[in-house]
Amino acid sequence: MASHKVQFQPNNVEIAVQSGTTIMEALDEAKIYYDFPCGGIGKCGKCKVKVLKGAQKPTSKEEKHLDEKEIEEGIRLACMTEIQNDITVELLNVRKMEHNILITSEEKAVKIEPHIKKVPIEIERPLLGDQRSDLHRVKDSLSRKGYRHDDLKASLTVMQKLPETLRHSGFKATAVMYENEIMEIESGDTTKTMLGVAFDIGTTTIVGYLLDLYTGEELAIASTLNPQTKYGADVISRINFANNEEDGIKKLHDAVIEAINKLIGEACDKASVKRSSVYGVSIAANTTMHHLFIGTSPKNIGISPYVSSVSEPLAIDAKELGIDINTGGKIFVLPNIAGFVGADTSAVILSTEMYKSDVVKLAIDIGTNGEIALGSKEKMFACSAAAGPAFEGAQISSGMRGAAGAIDHVYFKDKLEYTVIGDVKPIGICGSALLDVVAGLIELGIVDKRGRILSPDKLTNPEALKFKDNITEHEGQAAFLLADKNKTGSGKAVMVTQSDIRELQLAKGAMATGVKVLMEVLNIQVDEIKEVLLAGAFGNYLTPHSACVIGLIPMELESKIKMVGNAAGTGSRIALLSAGEFLKAGEIAEFVGFVELGSHPKFNSYFGECSYFKVPR
Amino acid sequence: MASHKVQFQPNNVEIAVQSGTTIMEALDEAKIYYDFPCGGIGKCGKCKVKVLKGAQKPTSKEEKHLDEKEIEEGIRLACMTEIQNDITVELLNVRKMEHNILITSEEKAVKIEPHIKKVPIEIERPLLGDQRSDLHRVKDSLSRKGYRHDDLKASLTVMQKLPETLRHSGFKATAVMYENEIMEIESGDTTKTMLGVAFDIGTTTIVGYLLDLYTGEELAIASTLNPQTKYGADVISRINFANNEEDGIKKLHDAVIEAINKLIGEACDKASVKRSSVYGVSIAANTTMHHLFIGTSPKNIGISPYVSSVSEPLAIDAKELGIDINTGGKIFVLPNIAGFVGADTSAVILSTEMYKSDVVKLAIDIGTNGEIALGSKEKMFACSAAAGPAFEGAQISSGMRGAAGAIDHVYFKDKLEYTVIGDVKPIGICGSALLDVVAGLIELGIVDKRGRILSPDKLTNPEALKFKDNITEHEGQAAFLLADKNKTGSGKAVMVTQSDIRELQLAKGAMATGVKVLMEVLNIQVDEIKEVLLAGAFGNYLTPHSACVIGLIPMELESKIKMVGNAAGTGSRIALLSAGEFLKAGEIAEFVGFVELGSHPKFNSYFGECSYFKVPR
Repeated sequence: MASHKVQFQPNNVEIAVQSGTTIMEALDEAKIYYDFPCGGIGKCGKCKVKVLKGAQKPTSKEEKHLDEKEIEEGIRLACMTEIQNDITVELLNVRKMEHNILITSEEKAVKIEPHIKKVPIEIERPLLGDQRSDLHRVKDSLSRKGYRHDDLKASLTVMQKLPETLRHSGFKATAVMYENEIMEIESGDTTKTMLGVAFDIGTTTIVGYLLDLYTGEELAIASTLNPQTKYGADVISRINFANNEEDGIKKLHDAVIEAINKLIGEACDKASVKRSSVYGVSIAANTTMHHLFIGTSPKNIGISPYVSSVSEPLAIDAKELGIDINTGGKIFVLPNIAGFVGADTSAVILSTEMYKSDVVKLAIDIGTNGEIALGSKEKMFACSAAAGPAFEGAQISSGMRGAAGAIDHVYFKDKLEYTVIGDVKPIGICGSALLDVVAGLIELGIVDKRGRILSPDKLTNPEALKFKDNITEHEGQAAFLLADKNKTGSGKAVMVTQSDIRELQLAKGAMATGVKVLMEVLNIQVDEIKEVLLAGAFGNYLTPHSACVIGLIPMELESKIKMVGNAAGTGSRIALLSAGEFLKAGEIAEFVGFVELGSHPKFNSYFGECSYFKVPR
Repeated sequence: MASHKVQFQPNNVEIAVQSGTTIMEALDEAKIYYDFPCGGIGKCGKCKVKVLKGAQKPTSKEEKHLDEKEIEEGIRLACMTEIQNDITVELLNVRKMEHNILITSEEKAVKIEPHIKKVPIEIERPLLGDQRSDLHRVKDSLSRKGYRHDDLKASLTVMQKLPETLRHSGFKATAVMYENEIMEIESGDTTKTMLGVAFDIGTTTIVGYLLDLYTGEELAIASTLNPQTKYGADVISRINFANNEEDGIKKLHDAVIEAINKLIGEACDKASVKRSSVYGVSIAANTTMHHLFIGTSPKNIGISPYVSSVSEPLAIDAKELGIDINTGGKIFVLPNIAGFVGADTSAVILSTEMYKSDVVKLAIDIGTNGEIALGSKEKMFACSAAAGPAFEGAQISSGMRGAAGAIDHVYFKDKLEYTVIGDVKPIGICGSALLDVVAGLIELGIVDKRGRILSPDKLTNPEALKFKDNITEHEGQAAFLLADKNKTGSGKAVMVTQSDIRELQLAKGAMATGVKVLMEVLNIQVDEIKEVLLAGAFGNYLTPHSACVIGLIPMELESKIKMVGNAAGTGSRIALLSAGEFLKAGEIAEFVGFVELGSHPKFNSYFGECSYFKVPR
């Protein structure tokens, strides 16, 4: 079969592919991450690229997403365009992590109690009258430090390297211990350094925190878009990819392992430490990300009765998973609560200490997949709500992630005001701005109970009339203009359309239904909730008032809202620093009840109710 | 660099090599096993090949081992000949395992108590109201079978395959358990089949016994020359290779792992079973073979104070060692006693049950490396004696292994009689015949106390005169002719030379010294020894009377000699079939004391004394 050259700009990468390969597949081969929110089925139209040289006629699926000017300029969908000749492609959405990823959190005092212990040992030298084996001597030294000789087990790697290691440093060594396992024996006294990396693997973003396992000090942070994004934007599309594609699970698994290894390398470089000094890694992730990380099928999470393969806390050899840290390193995977309430929720509950609370607290982690936990030390329940990617700016006409050029907050003052990430001309809006706009429109009476944008002549509130010129039309539907095309960086107007509001209604409706169902299951009234903890990137950038106005959170709780940062990441860090807390996460996963929202008898009626807005009287 | 074609006959294998590659290296590349008793340093002259096409002038090292006729015929040493043009090479010593390897042994009743258990489980199907993870359900099922839920651990592979496995067979499965480890979960009820392979890894030969782990039935046997032989004939030359060659340990380790995998495949083919039905493998080996099998350095075994890396019984994941059996399979490695008394001796003591005996027994395992154990249930000591390869026919002028064409027994009747393995014309002698010849010559007075062959005129015994024509000369030294060159298959005379007798004196001297020192250490008199157990291939083919006449075994013990077959192999089989016996091997390794022969104060005087012969008065 004929082969063609593909050049990617601005990356300046060139590869050869067989005729008929799509640009998406070529990107994959070239190992360039690119966003395919719908998973590459030509549905979302978000994977636009500009074919600078060699453009062909677009397919009919592409034509739906492209206007005439775009077609003429060579704009195409990477997922749909087959390569039939040598081409040069400009990537329009390469995000070099300039977007906001939440990586810090409130500090929390944790008693440090490492999983892994470094034990300095001095080994008796062999004599003709004392021919114990090297390993026997090591065990004897450890038994003088409180270990039981007969319980000790050494890994094959330790046994293989032992004679060299001991003799290299005159029989002074350091045993790296995990429980009764001798994970590694190092020449000399290496007790000074012991590092770990705590990960929060989100559907969209992966963040790793390099920590000193003795002090808890954070030495560096590294983050990246989850490279699995190219196989689908949300949990469901990844599950579908895993089920339907050949080697789907392996591709997703390999992608996340590669990203984790890359981040560990980056973090170590930033802190000028060796990756062999990393002995432990912790993982908090939703159940699907968890399963793809360990390499098991997420298939059954996606179908009733939504069962996970594995839920308990895991300690896995780094080597077995291909994680490139110290050869004796361990991976600590936090436990899942249920099919759609994962280890990230265990981590949130662990870090917020809700499970110890005398008073009732509500935690909401808003991401592509939203998780909600409610209760106190008496009883807790959690559920998951498929918010979809609307909060992350996807499936929104002018939507984008919280990257440079995104309007992130909107204020209805005498005129419309907004702030833009990176202080540049706006090119779109991110989720927090979408909330601000819709909340403002509700308060002004421009959007009604059912979510309709009213025409200017229907407005009654004098304040609303200030913004009547912003009410416009876009492709046959009502829209609210935020920035005219000559004021934006893309030459295209930034607006919120009627459909965008519908998407938001679905997303907030799902979350609000979750809260309502949990309250009912636990028989808790709204005034009993003493604290609302907002976790996750989106939760920390949104305006609490806007979230209450649109009904994402009950209005009565506005004053009780507290941002808790990346609580899942914090939970992961805690579980890495303390073996006791890691065990507690296991207890939390057992303690917290799970409600499967979709099969709750009142789900449909509540969801209908919750997707409406409450308008001011 | 120029590349040349090398064709090997009769194998009919052709490869290309770079100019300057030796024939030995080319054989290695072509994966053809060939014997290099001295390790390929041009010293022993045993690796002769015939260059049929393209022969060059021999090197000076080769000339020492080749006569004119040979040089003319194209005979060369494979280790010394560099390939400078396209050549065709005939391999003269390819042994297709037609040599005698001892693979059977006395049957011993063992209570079967497998290490690995297959537990049929029925898993409760997931429901909306019961969302325990798959693994949780499996553990719950196992806890109904007596396992403690919280103690159970599953391997990563199990977790990865679990959802598919359970659903493939309607939630009926079989758990493959090793202690509290869930090694494998198989769809349906697979309890019917559970196989294992017990190995005896000798310096020269590897034997594997395919066993039914439920019944102990032997389903097939497979054996091969130890492919490490090409890196050196004995333990010391392998240790040197491991120390001095780049990647020496890895080469030796890979060679034995490859051989083990090949043998498992062969045995499974013979028995028409799948190799995935093999769940356990046991390994008995001397300490050096043991270390090379697990891939640790044998360096310190070779230098005072002769310390091993690892001695305890090991259970290692097959996957980690690259042993190709069931993915959840385990390798059970028997324990070493000391640097030169290995797991093979533990296996001999286990299978002979000497450690339980009320009376004193002596066990002798004669191989390239000889091991001796002495004692009873009260106290036992063992030592190792570097017998060298003389007993195996190496370093003996007409010596060869017990293969077709080898004279294996010699009788001094009215005339000299002998038997030849394979009933063909003789081409050499193996160790048992060497013993018979020397014993006969001693009894006839043809060989004196110091080992000298007397000239015919010095003979006094009339019986001896019958054989005076056999006393001849070879390359300036006395020799005893067994077969004239026109009666042999090689066209060369078969004889025992004065130097051969010297070699035998060293070998038997070393063994006899070992017995003497152990008796002294334990303060045991010869009449207290109630049984002499001869183990190993050589031990089972030799004539007990000859062994006593030459002084390998004290004369007084002739009537107490009992052949116990391949006792190391039997020990390996027992340890595979019974977890309790495997543990006992660990206790044996602790119980049995070790004497380092070389550093015993009386070694030199005893050795001098023991290398003499006792001649009839």
